[in-house]
Amino acid sequence: PIIEAQIIETMVLLLLNHQSLIATKSTRIVSAAKGRPVMEFGARRAHSIDAAILGARAAVIGGCIGTSCTSTAQKFGTIASGTMAHSFVQSFNSEYDAFKAYAEVYPDDCTLLIDTYDTINSGVVNAIKVFNDVLLPKGYRPKAVRLDSGDLAYLSKKVRKMLDEAGFPDAVISASNDLDEYLIESLKLQGAVITSWGVGTNLITAKDNPAFGGVYKLAAIRDENGTFIPKIKLSENTEKVTNPGNKTIYRIYDKNTGKIRADLICLVGEVFDPEEDMTIFDPNEPWKKTRLAGGSYTLRELLVPVFKDGKCIYESPSVMEIQEICNKEKDTIWDETKRFVNPHEIHVDLSKKLYDLKNDLLNELHNLQED
Amino acid sequence: PIIEAQIIETMVLLLLNHQSLIATKSTRIVSAAKGRPVMEFGARRAHSIDAAILGARAAVIGGCIGTSCTSTAQKFGTIASGTMAHSFVQSFNSEYDAFKAYAEVYPDDCTLLIDTYDTINSGVVNAIKVFNDVLLPKGYRPKAVRLDSGDLAYLSKKVRKMLDEAGFPDAVISASNDLDEYLIESLKLQGAVITSWGVGTNLITAKDNPAFGGVYKLAAIRDENGTFIPKIKLSENTEKVTNPGNKTIYRIYDKNTGKIRADLICLVGEVFDPEEDMTIFDPNEPWKKTRLAGGSYTLRELLVPVFKDGKCIYESPSVMEIQEICNKEKDTIWDETKRFVNPHEIHVDLSKKLYDLKNDLLNELHNLQED
Repeated sequence: PIIEAQIIETMVLLLLNHQSLIATKSTRIVSAAKGRPVMEFGARRAHSIDAAILGARAAVIGGCIGTSCTSTAQKFGTIASGTMAHSFVQSFNSEYDAFKAYAEVYPDDCTLLIDTYDTINSGVVNAIKVFNDVLLPKGYRPKAVRLDSGDLAYLSKKVRKMLDEAGFPDAVISASNDLDEYLIESLKLQGAVITSWGVGTNLITAKDNPAFGGVYKLAAIRDENGTFIPKIKLSENTEKVTNPGNKTIYRIYDKNTGKIRADLICLVGEVFDPEEDMTIFDPNEPWKKTRLAGGSYTLRELLVPVFKDGKCIYESPSVMEIQEICNKEKDTIWDETKRFVNPHEIHVDLSKKLYDLKNDLLNELHNLQED
Repeated sequence: PIIEAQIIETMVLLLLNHQSLIATKSTRIVSAAKGRPVMEFGARRAHSIDAAILGARAAVIGGCIGTSCTSTAQKFGTIASGTMAHSFVQSFNSEYDAFKAYAEVYPDDCTLLIDTYDTINSGVVNAIKVFNDVLLPKGYRPKAVRLDSGDLAYLSKKVRKMLDEAGFPDAVISASNDLDEYLIESLKLQGAVITSWGVGTNLITAKDNPAFGGVYKLAAIRDENGTFIPKIKLSENTEKVTNPGNKTIYRIYDKNTGKIRADLICLVGEVFDPEEDMTIFDPNEPWKKTRLAGGSYTLRELLVPVFKDGKCIYESPSVMEIQEICNKEKDTIWDETKRFVNPHEIHVDLSKKLYDLKNDLLNELHNLQED
């Protein structure tokens, strides 16, 4: 019944919009790190508790290897990860004492935050001392040092040199401090020797674009005979005119490369034979048609039934499984679509049948207005 | 104990940052509306359920008269407010039928959404018909029509004229559609005849600046005798150097106007006599000192005890009471600080004692590094 759909409208939108937003941002940041691990560190800037927990979950789906949000790790079986806070270092009489206390408790996972007082003159010096004084005698190697302020390109090079000279070429340099995909890309271009990234505010808020604009529109209603009556919403903005009818969506892949050629929205029940030519239609600019040669493409229906006859028939994979699915999907996207500047947009087109239905309804409404 | 402070760190930051962010954005939007009501409409774009519910609460504190988030209204006793969705209109055989059904159920609170098909040629025409056919015979007047797309300046003028000519000068024109403080200000400058505003995405996400950067720093620890030992954290960015010690904060008002002159961070126990001259110090640019003449200012301590000896001793006012407190606070801010372009910043300065303590600790650390 329509009332059931109306009641869940806001909740469905809110959950899909928020988590798609953060997973997308995470994907971008992880891609900039080019295979180096990214950790989610943003809880304190999340828009509430749920936003921290579910945002971190989405960040892991997008490719982060872990999160400092321990609730997410506990609830969803992801990796909890983090280092010490500046306040931890300050709570001791000296930086050396703080590092020493930490190394004694976590000799096998010792990452030291070295910028509380002075990264080069104090932080890295004390870290090396503690590696020598505490870890080596116990038979452990250090894991990492973390930079959280200052010129990360310059500092990372200088710290790398000091660690190497002290006999710790295996100690990773980890960095945080208002990072995002653009800064990580830029730091890499500058030759920063950072091989582990912690990203907070810009990831958990998707700061440069914090709203994912998913909407919920009535597309069809069923009459008393069970027939779908297509519905349309007009708008002065062409791209806001809705696509009418009971629909589904196929993803079309290039047969040779396995990469996406387009997404195709069509009416439920339409059948396509990938051995035959197909013409698909841009929903906003009707003169833009794309012809796909038979034999050059494959099709996959994207919609999966979740509720049927009032029952949930879908079993959700674990977060780590979803991360894997997400990784596979990313492999089907062209590099030109994944770049940050002027990315190529994936076409989302209409089938001939849907395109005709939409036009018929639009003409019908225009005729009405002229009466 | 320090461990208790560390454990609540993220939660305290997250709650204060998020809700201060949305209340601030709400304040800005409400101020642009210049006394006309603003409603919060953003749940579907909030960063999770908590973000919708607590964000709407913060929006009301910032001055919104109500929210479409019914959970907020239920939990916090605020006003729930909203109109119909486009999907409601589409679910009927005609726009007229949809409006009629709504007017019959809500004759005393009848706001009709008029842009589902065509605002001027269909929406407002059907609204006027329903006002005449349903409301007037029952002895009711219409409340409003809502615009949610198109050129709001142009449409509002045209709709106003049509409503006036039809005998409904009292029907309010309400508008929504990706609004924020800048768009509302601009629409008012263009003479848009809109006297009620619904703001969604840009408010609930604080879209142009979605992170409130509150931080949590160790300022002092107590030694075994109960004495506070001040602590400092250095940074290459001067404004990130922390202010050490066990502190409190006073707001200084101009005695004549009651407007804020500055906020003063000082050490707990410092006493100020407003009849005497006072010099306060910019924490980042030490050559900037401000001299306040005795007798020209008043002082109010801003910190209020919430927990004492492990017990919560603070009773939180209701949301509507907080809104009132917030309104009074806003009256103490100069217009020059409230403007959107190049606002005058309120000085947040240090007392002489705190300024000296900070300098001593900085010098001490620098001496250490030279050893």
